[in-house]
Amino acid sequence: MDNTQIRIGIAGYGNLGRGVEAAIARNPDMTLVGVFTRRSPESVKPLSARTSVQPITALSDCRDTIDVLILCGGSKDDLPRQGPEMAARFNIVDSFDTHARIPEYFDSVDAPARANGKTALISIGWDPGMFSINRLYGEALLPDGATYTFWGKGLSQGHSDAIRRVPGVKAGVQYTLPSRDAIEQVRSGLRPELTTRQKHTRECYVVLNEGADAAEVERTIVTMPNYFADYDTTVHFISEETLLREHSRMPHGGFVIRSGNTTEAHAQVIEYSLQLESNPEFTASVLVAYARAAYRLNVQGQFGAKTAFDVAPGLLSIKTPAQLRKELL
Amino acid sequence: MDNTQIRIGIAGYGNLGRGVEAAIARNPDMTLVGVFTRRSPESVKPLSARTSVQPITALSDCRDTIDVLILCGGSKDDLPRQGPEMAARFNIVDSFDTHARIPEYFDSVDAPARANGKTALISIGWDPGMFSINRLYGEALLPDGATYTFWGKGLSQGHSDAIRRVPGVKAGVQYTLPSRDAIEQVRSGLRPELTTRQKHTRECYVVLNEGADAAEVERTIVTMPNYFADYDTTVHFISEETLLREHSRMPHGGFVIRSGNTTEAHAQVIEYSLQLESNPEFTASVLVAYARAAYRLNVQGQFGAKTAFDVAPGLLSIKTPAQLRKELL
Repeated sequence: MDNTQIRIGIAGYGNLGRGVEAAIARNPDMTLVGVFTRRSPESVKPLSARTSVQPITALSDCRDTIDVLILCGGSKDDLPRQGPEMAARFNIVDSFDTHARIPEYFDSVDAPARANGKTALISIGWDPGMFSINRLYGEALLPDGATYTFWGKGLSQGHSDAIRRVPGVKAGVQYTLPSRDAIEQVRSGLRPELTTRQKHTRECYVVLNEGADAAEVERTIVTMPNYFADYDTTVHFISEETLLREHSRMPHGGFVIRSGNTTEAHAQVIEYSLQLESNPEFTASVLVAYARAAYRLNVQGQFGAKTAFDVAPGLLSIKTPAQLRKELL
Repeated sequence: MDNTQIRIGIAGYGNLGRGVEAAIARNPDMTLVGVFTRRSPESVKPLSARTSVQPITALSDCRDTIDVLILCGGSKDDLPRQGPEMAARFNIVDSFDTHARIPEYFDSVDAPARANGKTALISIGWDPGMFSINRLYGEALLPDGATYTFWGKGLSQGHSDAIRRVPGVKAGVQYTLPSRDAIEQVRSGLRPELTTRQKHTRECYVVLNEGADAAEVERTIVTMPNYFADYDTTVHFISEETLLREHSRMPHGGFVIRSGNTTEAHAQVIEYSLQLESNPEFTASVLVAYARAAYRLNVQGQFGAKTAFDVAPGLLSIKTPAQLRKELL
């Protein structure tokens, strides 16, 4: 490890930004310059009292004091505007996760980054991110094969919102679960054809309004088109206290499995899985490791937009290449 | 995919070389120039009748016709001599797997490769190789954590040899198995302290000589110092026919698990596993994907010795960066 401190800025302070603050504290080669917010700085309560909170406009004075700016806004409204703008001024890392729009977003960030000698790592996290890397490794190592991605057990925001719109429902959350049967079929090397629906089940935890008809609520949920009708859906009724106590975390995770053959005689299975108690904190931790890579790539003169596919594993580590070869190879 | 064919040579033709031949046939951007052997070429029977087999001395005429030479010799006797010699003349990929000697081997290959503008990817395979990458990713993404490597179910050559030296034993094989209990402890996020011995059990399949005392053979095996005495070891007696029918494959695999916390409140678990019906064929398939990377790195002017840590995932894929972003991210 050399002694250079990498100076990090955080743009946006929701669950993800808070996770980045926590992750920086666990990486001794990084210093947090500050949190930059569109809200009133006084309204933001960082994890550490020593964390400086400033208006996002203050970033214009930070071009020489921030090595990498981590963008913690959302993919729908924030990043499409913020990514290209910030990539012209800073090395950036973001978690842009609208899969279908990644090529377009990549181009929109690539041009300003290149023009200004900056490095922009986009779509970093676990999906897109670590799951994508494992889909790529799987295909490359077993070209004759099939790749399966399963998600869960994970809290789904959109489906939780749908439950809460059902008449008689006071509160509720929905978890997507990978189907155990489907996973076992895939692990067996059989290469089954499975739709997303066959690979997942849904589990709902619902708090009823007083006097609501549980049977009617359950029927409305499990038959709801698009959201639940085609899935194996289970509804559990719980008290508000239980909901708060047991369902306020944001777990997630999943599996990427590549099943393939090296010869007709020999099947091979590669599996990568995540079991996350906090989805935003893990995503944040991935962003911070890639901030180290963004810094190093920029020092090497590797400008423009890049994704997790373009980053050699060693660039993520605090250790030197020689240490890595000695200790981890 | 561009239309360049990458021209590959295979040096050495045992199980690994045969696996490389099979893998090249599954990668449409690669052409096999030939197998180069120290044996008499007539004695080598390649998988495909179209594969050219030549004496290893013929390599001196192939500097312009081979883009990457895959070294398929052993780490003990072949590679320490062959690696440095060949890295002066070819881009190479090898599976040097004596973990403790990797730094020394790296240096011995790096100097001739650099001096001659060649790229040498060493210690490629799954351990070292894919497991190493996952140990690195685990540490980098969850700095506050612990990493666990489990091996198996896998055939162990050294332990199989030890069984076969026991008086009364006609033939036999030994499998190393990961302990299910230990894996479950690790997956729970508890970060237990476990020795290699606590993480693995051993299973032996033994064919007795006529008249041999089964109880005595079993006692000798399970109490054998270094090999079995400190492990939970099971001995099964089987017929020679069963041994041939059910135990002539070379399965292997294992698990790399990183258990860590992003904050005190939230544990996160990353798991990578391989379930291989043929260890040499999978290793060969990894070598071939990295041959593509070696070729591309050399074209980019990245000379010298490198390991899996230095290779961005995208370099392994037959697909273009834009295709990868569109299809796999």
